[in-house]
Amino acid sequence: MKEDIKQRIDAFRSLMKESGIDAAIIPQADPHMSEYLAPHWQVRRWLSGFTGSAGDLLITADKAMLWTDSRYFLQAANQLEGTGIELMKDGLLTTPSMTEIICGLLPSGATVGVDGMLMPSQQLRALRADLAVKGICLDCRFAPVDRIWTDRPDLPEDAVYEHELEYAGESADSKIEKILAATKNANADAVLMSALDEIAWTLNIRSWDVKYTPVATAFFYITDRERVLFINPAKITEDTAAYLMRTGVEVRPYSDFQRFLELLPQSVRVLVDESKTAGAIIDILGERAVDGGTTVATKLKSVKNDKQLEGVRNAMIRDGVALVKFFMEFEDRFNAGEALTELDVEAILHDKRRSGENFMDESFGTIAGYGPHGAIVHYEADKESNAALQHKSLLLVDSGAQYLDGTTDITRTFALGVPTEQEKNDFTLVMKGHIALATAIFPEGTRGAQLDALARQFLWKNGLNYLHGTGHGVGFFLGVHEGPQSIRLNNVEAPLLPGCITSNEPGLYRENVHGIRCENLVLTHKVMETEFGTFLGFETLTLCPFDRSLFNTTLMTSEEIKWVDDYHAMVRERLMPHLGMPEQRKWLSEHTQPLNK
Amino acid sequence: MKEDIKQRIDAFRSLMKESGIDAAIIPQADPHMSEYLAPHWQVRRWLSGFTGSAGDLLITADKAMLWTDSRYFLQAANQLEGTGIELMKDGLLTTPSMTEIICGLLPSGATVGVDGMLMPSQQLRALRADLAVKGICLDCRFAPVDRIWTDRPDLPEDAVYEHELEYAGESADSKIEKILAATKNANADAVLMSALDEIAWTLNIRSWDVKYTPVATAFFYITDRERVLFINPAKITEDTAAYLMRTGVEVRPYSDFQRFLELLPQSVRVLVDESKTAGAIIDILGERAVDGGTTVATKLKSVKNDKQLEGVRNAMIRDGVALVKFFMEFEDRFNAGEALTELDVEAILHDKRRSGENFMDESFGTIAGYGPHGAIVHYEADKESNAALQHKSLLLVDSGAQYLDGTTDITRTFALGVPTEQEKNDFTLVMKGHIALATAIFPEGTRGAQLDALARQFLWKNGLNYLHGTGHGVGFFLGVHEGPQSIRLNNVEAPLLPGCITSNEPGLYRENVHGIRCENLVLTHKVMETEFGTFLGFETLTLCPFDRSLFNTTLMTSEEIKWVDDYHAMVRERLMPHLGMPEQRKWLSEHTQPLNK
Repeated sequence: MKEDIKQRIDAFRSLMKESGIDAAIIPQADPHMSEYLAPHWQVRRWLSGFTGSAGDLLITADKAMLWTDSRYFLQAANQLEGTGIELMKDGLLTTPSMTEIICGLLPSGATVGVDGMLMPSQQLRALRADLAVKGICLDCRFAPVDRIWTDRPDLPEDAVYEHELEYAGESADSKIEKILAATKNANADAVLMSALDEIAWTLNIRSWDVKYTPVATAFFYITDRERVLFINPAKITEDTAAYLMRTGVEVRPYSDFQRFLELLPQSVRVLVDESKTAGAIIDILGERAVDGGTTVATKLKSVKNDKQLEGVRNAMIRDGVALVKFFMEFEDRFNAGEALTELDVEAILHDKRRSGENFMDESFGTIAGYGPHGAIVHYEADKESNAALQHKSLLLVDSGAQYLDGTTDITRTFALGVPTEQEKNDFTLVMKGHIALATAIFPEGTRGAQLDALARQFLWKNGLNYLHGTGHGVGFFLGVHEGPQSIRLNNVEAPLLPGCITSNEPGLYRENVHGIRCENLVLTHKVMETEFGTFLGFETLTLCPFDRSLFNTTLMTSEEIKWVDDYHAMVRERLMPHLGMPEQRKWLSEHTQPLNK
Repeated sequence: MKEDIKQRIDAFRSLMKESGIDAAIIPQADPHMSEYLAPHWQVRRWLSGFTGSAGDLLITADKAMLWTDSRYFLQAANQLEGTGIELMKDGLLTTPSMTEIICGLLPSGATVGVDGMLMPSQQLRALRADLAVKGICLDCRFAPVDRIWTDRPDLPEDAVYEHELEYAGESADSKIEKILAATKNANADAVLMSALDEIAWTLNIRSWDVKYTPVATAFFYITDRERVLFINPAKITEDTAAYLMRTGVEVRPYSDFQRFLELLPQSVRVLVDESKTAGAIIDILGERAVDGGTTVATKLKSVKNDKQLEGVRNAMIRDGVALVKFFMEFEDRFNAGEALTELDVEAILHDKRRSGENFMDESFGTIAGYGPHGAIVHYEADKESNAALQHKSLLLVDSGAQYLDGTTDITRTFALGVPTEQEKNDFTLVMKGHIALATAIFPEGTRGAQLDALARQFLWKNGLNYLHGTGHGVGFFLGVHEGPQSIRLNNVEAPLLPGCITSNEPGLYRENVHGIRCENLVLTHKVMETEFGTFLGFETLTLCPFDRSLFNTTLMTSEEIKWVDDYHAMVRERLMPHLGMPEQRKWLSEHTQPLNK
């Protein structure tokens, strides 16, 4: 495999040479700026062998470098070893940016190549400007990989289906009306959507083009008079065609999209989010593009309606029941002496979830990281890495499901033996941050970056930290990561609005020792109104016990202990009616006892 | 006075009409984007009668509106009443921006006037673009106020003097060398400084052009070969001329500045911070301007050297001693039944500080706000408002000094009678936030906005809040507010660097009841280095007891109580050797006893 990678990069270098390209950028991206990519667009993965969901590749005549973030530092180091590709640790103060490296390596007059459909316009523009300072040109039509990737997968052809109103809670007509009203406010005539989750949400349609994320590959163009969906016609079933027709949506082939844009009248003002629209698209639109920043659809989508919240609460019960069954089977087999591995954990968990009502898929690849593997933030076990579980250390399990009525995402970390002092202290510090965030009250308009330190403060006091975000937005039977809100170190202007669902997942990763993450999903809701304004807080939605053996209650305040006990009481109350067997009820009852009992 | 204001605005409207201006913006600004203005530039104040240090005025044919922030809501409401000027509360979600108001009021084809020397380039450019969308023109040369402000003060003529190396700790040559090195890194040939505190810091010069802030009105232009200071020659004494000559600085008249810029070669690349440089200056520079964001001088200036820190620690002792003497005299006279007012408090405090070594001036107008006046965040008592102090409620005193070896800024809130439960609870919640921030540990690179919520969390949980920032940078015998770092709701990218001095000043303001603010200055310093990186924390520099009668210790953790006791022990230890009289030592000893004693 490592040799394959070397050969692919050499072949790619020949293509660069033919086209007079001195350095090529291969972003991890599709023309829709998706987080998870259909196999067709896994170019970076195919070229580098690195399987992480984030990371861009740079290839020059004699160097290859891959930038990825802290989630993937260890995984990338493993996968890139021996390929000749150098790992660049993004987000560290000492790591130069790709642009800095390019400007350092290439002389004035050199040319950098990139496929303009695979880079957001804002980024492409900044890159072009930064390179121009050094006299380096940017060729945005360099997309030659088909010539060497001979078995490249086709564009997806999965069927599109309607996500029914009983789940979605709002019709496509109603959503489009709101979007058009906001479009007029922005002095624009049309909206161009290229983000797949926005299109799926707006039209109440779903498909399985991308693993884990039920979206259909498409572009969507809306004005007062037209609603045009550019999509592979093979994906449209008879039912879906009828639904789209009722919704006033005209279907055109995906391949017609660029031509359609080129033929738009010069006077039309098309609202886009340049940070999430491919540079090549903005280049075609030219003066017709109006950058409105974060789209209306993204904002509306993040605030769940009552029907959706009802669905999510039900989905959480099903997910919680599946997790109880998972823990019971795992404990039974593990304690009976069966030799279990990380992949067994994934399989048992998948098996328990699959049988739940409305279950459609997992919402991302399960992370079952044992001991040192837990410290690899986005670890996914494979046959080579698959660790045998022993009766000691910690097992971190991060998993989630796509139900028709909601998306889940939960991480639990539990001890496989009698926990050590360090394991308990580490876990307790993480939980103190989790609780501080779960119980935070904050004024309307507060951004996630303002609250992030609440979750980190106890770790920081002990010289500890985690490099990933504390919380990401979560879609509704859509992306398990969605914007605009988040809770992280970096500033994001979107406030935490009532109705948003966000994860609360502080962690701690000791390289070569263990990883800890404690993740629930929380709903932002209104808590009180005073003379000082409206105050919001979080309601925890996820229903699953934490490992009580890992708490060091001497490090906790009485309020923190009470929060855990109250949470466990709620989990017990909500899940118990759905557990049919006495031993299940016994398990849940035991695992939700007060901490100091 | 209110009638004067009406007449001035009417006269101004006539000038607008003559010039075909439909709406005029009068910013609170000088050509150096100073926070505090020399009298010559108090145009907005003269026209509106509003004396606050922040707030822009908009005048149209039939409306006048003034935008100011929450610090000044109550004061502005009082001062604007009866003038016909409408108060616009900046920072509230419901308040439209000035641009929104202009676009709503004026038709396409209208003209807005502003003096381009009084608005930062970034803001001017955004304004121009926003107005252009509505077809409204912007005339940036509308500066007619001289024609009606017949007794307008002249430009300042105060003498400039050297701020000696024994205080500054680094020579002008050394600073200029660092600035030029950074200029080359930014691919520029020259630096243009227009911020007065940057010029004062770089050249180690001071003057008193602006009340409370020891700066000289000037522009400074540096390249490898020239160092040109544009300043009123009347300000340059013989000694200063000799010092500047030794430092290789050429002095030219302030009035030559614009002409000098116009004559610069077209090829020269001049580094500026567009957010802090007047739009008219950037218009003259045109393509020659290179926007480098926050200037090197600002960044370097914020990190105090060892000599400066030694000075600040000494200045804090002098300031603390002055405050002990102030509290003692105030208590003696007040308890003896003397009728004291807010202005008496200011006078006693000024008197005690004035006698300290190296004292040069106060660092801002003292705020002595009694009862409801304490809730007016930037209240300054005058003869009309001056409240008589009674033996109840709270007195908030925010004050500071300019010493040759450091700038101070401290707020204490104390009870004038037996405090009520609400007074104690409010005070304690504010102090819990103060302590949470004072004891925070955080990784290198952390921004103030990430820590701000630590200071607010306890208030928020009770539906309380304050609308001002939690902390501002503090200069060294320079501006009491300086960048780039701050601790506030809004995101500011500058991290809290070791060596920065910042205020820690959460508060709580109950309209018509009382105001509370607890402010110390803190120094960012390195706390530890672990496998997770370098961690920083704060060292509290200010030395003055808090009012022990206002703590409700039942709301506090034992760690919080210990922090207060330890702080008071430090205050006692540092100030005691400098108190000569037994009753002073007795006072300090009593006021620094443990809380639960």
